[in-house]
Amino acid sequence: MGPGPSNCSHRVLEAMSNPVLGHMHPECLQIMDEVKEGIKYIFQTLNDATMCISGAGHSGMEAALCNLIEDGDVVLMGITGVWGHRAGDMARRYGAEVHYVEASFGRALSHEEITFAFEAHRPKVFFIAQGDSSTGIIQQNIRELGELCRKYDCFLIVDTVASLGGTEFLMDEWKVDVAYTGSQKTLGGPAGLTPISFSKRALTRIRKRKTKPKVYYFDILLIGQYWGCYGTPRIYHHTISSTLLYGLREALAHFCAVGLKAVVRRHQECSKRLQLGIEELGLEMFVSREDERLSTVNTIKVPFGVDWKKVAEYAMRKYSVEVSGGLGPTVEHVFRIGLMGENATVERVDMVLSILNEAIQSSKLGIKTDLSKI
Amino acid sequence: MGPGPSNCSHRVLEAMSNPVLGHMHPECLQIMDEVKEGIKYIFQTLNDATMCISGAGHSGMEAALCNLIEDGDVVLMGITGVWGHRAGDMARRYGAEVHYVEASFGRALSHEEITFAFEAHRPKVFFIAQGDSSTGIIQQNIRELGELCRKYDCFLIVDTVASLGGTEFLMDEWKVDVAYTGSQKTLGGPAGLTPISFSKRALTRIRKRKTKPKVYYFDILLIGQYWGCYGTPRIYHHTISSTLLYGLREALAHFCAVGLKAVVRRHQECSKRLQLGIEELGLEMFVSREDERLSTVNTIKVPFGVDWKKVAEYAMRKYSVEVSGGLGPTVEHVFRIGLMGENATVERVDMVLSILNEAIQSSKLGIKTDLSKI
Repeated sequence: MGPGPSNCSHRVLEAMSNPVLGHMHPECLQIMDEVKEGIKYIFQTLNDATMCISGAGHSGMEAALCNLIEDGDVVLMGITGVWGHRAGDMARRYGAEVHYVEASFGRALSHEEITFAFEAHRPKVFFIAQGDSSTGIIQQNIRELGELCRKYDCFLIVDTVASLGGTEFLMDEWKVDVAYTGSQKTLGGPAGLTPISFSKRALTRIRKRKTKPKVYYFDILLIGQYWGCYGTPRIYHHTISSTLLYGLREALAHFCAVGLKAVVRRHQECSKRLQLGIEELGLEMFVSREDERLSTVNTIKVPFGVDWKKVAEYAMRKYSVEVSGGLGPTVEHVFRIGLMGENATVERVDMVLSILNEAIQSSKLGIKTDLSKI
Repeated sequence: MGPGPSNCSHRVLEAMSNPVLGHMHPECLQIMDEVKEGIKYIFQTLNDATMCISGAGHSGMEAALCNLIEDGDVVLMGITGVWGHRAGDMARRYGAEVHYVEASFGRALSHEEITFAFEAHRPKVFFIAQGDSSTGIIQQNIRELGELCRKYDCFLIVDTVASLGGTEFLMDEWKVDVAYTGSQKTLGGPAGLTPISFSKRALTRIRKRKTKPKVYYFDILLIGQYWGCYGTPRIYHHTISSTLLYGLREALAHFCAVGLKAVVRRHQECSKRLQLGIEELGLEMFVSREDERLSTVNTIKVPFGVDWKKVAEYAMRKYSVEVSGGLGPTVEHVFRIGLMGENATVERVDMVLSILNEAIQSSKLGIKTDLSKI
């Protein structure tokens, strides 16, 4: 029940023990085609340049920035937690001039704050996480940001690693230029392959670069060729892991069968139930505004006098259940409870509430539990 | 029986359907520690900076170059097939001044050729593939190259993706600064995690860089911290795939149990048997000198008048056995037969010889086989 990876279903796990395929075998290429269709559906896009990067979610962030940035480009990072800073670190290494627009602690960014920063910096690329898993904040106004970026001739990168499937995301309709997500969150696939999509507008820009993207491994003109995105012959770029493809395909197939709207609804209902339960326990959500709370990663204030680490250890040792601490700005301030994929069910919500309560109570009472005996 | 991925054992495949672990869970970190010990053994190194890159073999090449190169550095690429060119493409993107020293077609590089290029270019980094899977050539003089690099104050990167386990490789004794290998070749693990090791000398150089490595995802000071390489607390860098770790651990465990020398001996004996069989069939190896033949990827000249594609298709359609064509400079010139891991057995050698012969004969006779009916 942590902020990811979420548990994989039996269907996904079982698929991953299938014999491996070569990276250019027709059967492997067919699975890639099927995965590509699944990714188009979950992003709600018709983009040709839809594929996976063979790496963790961070490799999606890298690929988005690497392909759009050339030396000296001005890049603006929206900050609602840690991921904007991470993207800033990456972008600076690629030679960008990086600026930040930071939300108030525990809040999403307002349209005014962002517009002000656009006026000041005139960025060529704007990065925002739709959901920041370190704070549990959701940035609701992606549609408006799409409009804003067009107005300023800027490219919009949206990190949906923690949010996709837990809230609405309409890549094409909202005019998002690059989106990527985590395979191991609401999708319930294995970590290690990162779905990503580039708009036609972004692709045109990338084709007109004066210099090659700085990383061969993240060059989406080459990766997209291997993924058969551009109607040209498929050329070897790297050895993709058929094992991870098997898992991701099953995860996507399940997701598509249930349907995007139903998946989102389930995640939101589970989060609402959790929030209600948190209130009933006398605890407080970290994000004060209800409409700024991410449904997938729920942040709960650590009550005064409670050691979050002891609570997390108690839950893990006694119940083998992960309740996570904070990350970056929220370290020691919050618990993070993930409701994603297999873990987004009413039963799991009730279970984790009960465990959290028991763990906090035991910690409050100052019981020196001998954990080794549990 | 292609040039990789090789077949995974049942033990490896089965491990990959285990439930996923979080990337910071103690159990996951323990598996990483065990994998690290395995990697040290296969490279014969005591290097602290031994870890995996979460990506395909190419990500190992990227990480090696990315961490050692700063803008304007002179880098020399040894060419015995395609991989030196690939490394050159990557290094140029990182801002290096790239030079090449190319072997004669079908030959390894001589010490003289390399020394001459060192004199001419005074490189700061020298890259060579111990085995080039596109040509089936092995570069035997890595030990001498280690000495040469020390003399010229140069860093030695050795790509052992296709060679490790098929020939001797002594990272520390030979003074190699960076080595990486493929998980999906002789190791018989899944693709997607790339073992890599940096010498103390390389690490010292990286710590003294004037600029950060250009890619956060490949920054081995950060990755090594996550892998617990430097005696400092383990800090999250990216979400590692526990699924792939399970598979790689089993592959390494098996490799270690059999023992490095026995593994190498088996691969070499299998290759010898294959070479003998090829001769008996009246075919010819592509690499003329016996001591320059890679045991893991065996290249055989396509006989005059034979269409390699039809041969490969015949083997695949009738026997579900992969016989690969060439790559880069060897396209249309050679068949490539991989003898790696599970596929390096006497039985497999005899089987592939018999299939290759049948496929070639059928093609020679000009039999228009209706493949759809096989």
